[in-house]
Amino acid sequence: MKRIKVSNNVIRRMPRYLRKLDDLNAAGIERISSGELGRQMGLTPSQIRQDFSCFGEFGQQGYGYNVDALYEEIGNILGLNKGRKIILLGAGNLGMALVKHLSFEAKGFRMIGIFDKNPKLIGQKIHGIEIMPESELESFCQKNKPDAAVLCLPKDVVEELGDRLISYGIRAFWNFSHYDLGLRHRDKGTPIVVENVHLGDSLMTLCYQVNELDEDE
Amino acid sequence: MKRIKVSNNVIRRMPRYLRKLDDLNAAGIERISSGELGRQMGLTPSQIRQDFSCFGEFGQQGYGYNVDALYEEIGNILGLNKGRKIILLGAGNLGMALVKHLSFEAKGFRMIGIFDKNPKLIGQKIHGIEIMPESELESFCQKNKPDAAVLCLPKDVVEELGDRLISYGIRAFWNFSHYDLGLRHRDKGTPIVVENVHLGDSLMTLCYQVNELDEDE
Repeated sequence: MKRIKVSNNVIRRMPRYLRKLDDLNAAGIERISSGELGRQMGLTPSQIRQDFSCFGEFGQQGYGYNVDALYEEIGNILGLNKGRKIILLGAGNLGMALVKHLSFEAKGFRMIGIFDKNPKLIGQKIHGIEIMPESELESFCQKNKPDAAVLCLPKDVVEELGDRLISYGIRAFWNFSHYDLGLRHRDKGTPIVVENVHLGDSLMTLCYQVNELDEDE
Repeated sequence: MKRIKVSNNVIRRMPRYLRKLDDLNAAGIERISSGELGRQMGLTPSQIRQDFSCFGEFGQQGYGYNVDALYEEIGNILGLNKGRKIILLGAGNLGMALVKHLSFEAKGFRMIGIFDKNPKLIGQKIHGIEIMPESELESFCQKNKPDAAVLCLPKDVVEELGDRLISYGIRAFWNFSHYDLGLRHRDKGTPIVVENVHLGDSLMTLCYQVNELDEDE
């Protein structure tokens, strides 16, 4: 499929469509109109048609969307079937929870290595993947060529480690650290992509919203 | 301070400013120009001035921003000093990691209760907070009046529990479940606020970006 440059907002809605289609499929629903899909997702039918038109035509006038086919198409758009290789850096509470809690495979990634500097964790296995010392990171990357890294490390470690990871060939980062990775590195010529999950920022935003709610009353 | 309606994007940048100001403070920097702050954050000076102008005037022409004062002001804007009460529902890997990993107090919330239905977890203590059975949720809420709830539960549980929590007086949700809380509930008259953290969506978005990177080459 030929891909065109699509806005970030459209891309960010794709996983939501996927979850909704998964629900519909589980409920035995085979097709759905853009109107009904919109109603269930809080979007307008025209927004839905516009979102999908970025990638070609999926629906059929008067028929609606085939749930199975649309699910597969969106998976292809996101490239979930390519089995990208990912490693985890930092096997603390959060890192371990992510590995245990999320099905990486269904989200396009295969977890192939976990690294930590805590000697107590080295050698333990999570989902069959052994936790390795950070000293083995470079040779591991040379051999296994991971596409992406989950960063569950303190800010100052990421600041230092970022350059090394890029030099090892990793160009995609799922960043849970408080360090805004990418601001500095993007200038240096190697294109990288960063998906930041700043949990603390999210919680503070909720705090603001709670206060707003009180003031509106 | 009189507050005006501020766009979501501006609010979402506030925690980032706060993190940056914290760094500056730790580095012993007492004041900073909008130009330099912008350079370090990947924003334009005029964007920065515009962000803060939503809340009144902080900077001084030719002097820049006082790091301490700006930090405090942003904390006030977000309302971090009000000690909002929050509970956790779901003491699995992710829920526990959040409680252990994040400093809720610094983000405006005091964790006052943890609930789970797993009998093995009941009675255990995390940071001095005992895990309680879900059967005690209602009486706990009546007595302690939490403002917010962290939802680390499966989708179907949240779908069912959402209405109950709202009826117990909770109106703010930090939602890690795959259920798009709020779509249905917002129609029902009780105003609620929801901050969704869909980790799977974020990972799939990263997957798309990795593929984009490959195709650009």
